[in-house]
Formats: sequence, C-alpha cells, structure tokens
Amino acid sequence: MTGRRTEVREPQQDRSRATRQRLLESTIELLAAHGWAGSTVAEVAEHAGVSRGAAQHHYPTREDLITGALEYMFDSRMAELRGSAAELEAGPRRTLLVVRRVVDHFTGTLFKAALQVWTAAAADEELRARIVPLEAKFGRHAHRTTVEMLGADDADPVVHTLVQATLDMARGLGLADVLTDDSARRDRIVRQWADTLHAALEPGTAARPADR
Amino acid sequence: MTGRRTEVREPQQDRSRATRQRLLESTIELLAAHGWAGSTVAEVAEHAGVSRGAAQHHYPTREDLITGALEYMFDSRMAELRGSAAELEAGPRRTLLVVRRVVDHFTGTLFKAALQVWTAAAADEELRARIVPLEAKFGRHAHRTTVEMLGADDADPVVHTLVQATLDMARGLGLADVLTDDSARRDRIVRQWADTLHAALEPGTAARPADR
Repeated sequence: MTGRRTEVREPQQDRSRATRQRLLESTIELLAAHGWAGSTVAEVAEHAGVSRGAAQHHYPTREDLITGALEYMFDSRMAELRGSAAELEAGPRRTLLVVRRVVDHFTGTLFKAALQVWTAAAADEELRARIVPLEAKFGRHAHRTTVEMLGADDADPVVHTLVQATLDMARGLGLADVLTDDSARRDRIVRQWADTLHAALEPGTAARPADR
Repeated sequence: MTGRRTEVREPQQDRSRATRQRLLESTIELLAAHGWAGSTVAEVAEHAGVSRGAAQHHYPTREDLITGALEYMFDSRMAELRGSAAELEAGPRRTLLVVRRVVDHFTGTLFKAALQVWTAAAADEELRARIVPLEAKFGRHAHRTTVEMLGADDADPVVHTLVQATLDMARGLGLADVLTDDSARRDRIVRQWADTLHAALEPGTAARPADR
C-alpha cells in the first residue's frame, strides 16, 4: 500500500521522513478498518513494515502517533482541496463541485479514521484533552478552505453560517456512509444542497430574509 | 437514575417490564458515557440494579440488549417528537421549531449512544449485520416523522431531498457536539437553516430552480 523506498545510500533524513509517512498512513488505514482498539503502535508498525522500536523513536506514545497521523493527513487533504478549486469559474457549477468535493472529503478514509478517534475520546478524558484542540483547528481550517473554494464573502453572517451548515451536512453524510454505501442517496442530496446553497448565497433572494 | 418500583405484590408482568426498561435505559446511559467497551451486560446489569442472571434472562446476548435499547429509546423519542409538533401552526415558526427539535434529537444521549454502536460496528462484521437494518429503519422513521412535523409534501422530490439534507445536517451537528458543547454555534446554524429551508420549501422561489 505504501511502497518501501529502495534507493541505495538513501540519506538518513529521507529515510526518517519515509518511515514517518508510512507510519502515519498505516495509522489512518488501520483506524478506519479496525477501529481504535485495532490500532495500537505495535499493529501500526507491523502494517507499515517498520520495527516497533523505530515506530516508538518517531512517536513515543500511541496518542502522538494518532494525533500526528490525523494532522498530517488532514493538512494534505486540505491542500489538495484548495488546489482542486483554483481553476473553477464562479457560478452554480462551481458551487456544486465545491459541495461535492467537501462531501467527498467527509466520506473518505480520513473521516472514518477520525470518527473512531472522536468516538474513543468521548469515553476517555485524557484522549479528549488531546483531541479537542485538534478538532477545533480542523473545523476552522475546513471552514476557511470551503469559503476560499466557493469564492464567498465570509464577513457576511448568512454566508458564514451557511458554509458551516454545509460542513455539518457533509459530516452527517460521512456518518451515514460508515456502515453502508450511501453514495446514490448522497449524490441527490449534494445536488439539491448545492442548488439551495447557491440560491441562498445570492443577495436579495427569498432564501435570505432580512429580518433575522 | 431509574427509580426502583417498590409496590408490594407487584404483578410479575409489571416487574418484568420495569426490569427491562431499567436495563434499556442503563444501556443507553452507559454507551453514551463509557462507549462500547464500557457497556457489557454485566456493567449494564450493575448500573440498573438487576442481577446478571435476570439481565441475561431478558436479553441473552449483549447484541440483543444493545439493539433492544436503541429500538426502545428511538421509538419513544420519535413518539415524543410527533406529539410535540401536533399543535404547531404552519409558517416559518413551525419550520424553526421542527428543525430545532430534530437537531435536539441528534444531540441527545440516544444519538451519543448510537454513535458508539455505529462506530464499533464499522470494525466488527457481525455487529454491522445487526445494525445496518436498524439504521435503515431509524432513517426511514426519522424522515417520515420530520415530514409529518413540517406538514410537508414528501411526494415533491425537492421537499423529500431537503428533508433528508436536514436530517444529515442534524446528524453532523450531533457529531460536532460529542466532544465539546457546541450549542451556541449550533443555534445560529439551526436558525439560518430553518430560514433557508422554509424559503426553499415554498414553490416558485429562487431556491427551487426548475432545471434540475
């Protein structure tokens, strides 16, 4: 799944970086497939083809490994998302593509892995203390990225709140996809939501009553 | 938390019903607070003040207990929701109250308990086979209840899909409330979405383009 680098005399720094990346990717894969209980440092190290000692050298505790994996994967995915929207022209089609990409993000392996960690943290005070700042950072970052992709004016409180609602809906669609393939139903919702959102983002429509 | 019935010569049938109810309520409380791993039959029986033998008489396996608890609590909550909307007059205020009550449902203890079960089922094939039909039933039932509360025409595909989107958004708001109190942010989203939904449910508005 993660190709082992084979260059002769690979510099130490590159080898360390490749080892860390294999560990972080394996962590996300194992969390999504086997849950919190099935993602110990030993299991991640074995899945990544790294010795347990090497894994612990890079990530002394399981919490370090798991929060490191979530941050690394989240940052990569957000950079991809931003890149993917750079060339889109304004209009209903851009809104649809942005909603679709944001929803795709919340139905991917990273969301499924994060869900296992969030859920474990709900019943574990120590883990919760590590995860809450991470969740807040992810929330802010996802919001900013979605605003940029939509080319929307986040200073407008209606826009700000509808972008948040879009992210909450995407999170809900992610949850609906955890046990079964929800893609057909999801596609109808994404199209309808994009229509409704696009209309609501236009000033002066019925979807933007001035009295609230 | 669940008062023990103290009547003398309480008929056997009533005692059994009260025992089952205590077990089901304790199951939901323990799942929400301590997660899947902290909700064995023994722990639930102890929390409910019921002997382990009596618990196993009513619910032979942990899966029987947990699916029984989810069904019982879900059915009660849906009946409450329907009852709470019976007296509301049509208009924007009804839409707001309905969205708020649906979102309240997804941020309550039952949702937090169900989340623990759904997440455990993601990494457990046998449990998943028990949970998938339950999730489908809950989804249909919540949809029908929301349509009734809104007094909406579910035969209209736009209405049908926007009600689904509302439930997905509510599920996402539920997830956002698992680790921290998200109520202030959530209230803004509920108000904005109720406005947008109400406008979109009115035929002939910009939020209902005819071309899709």
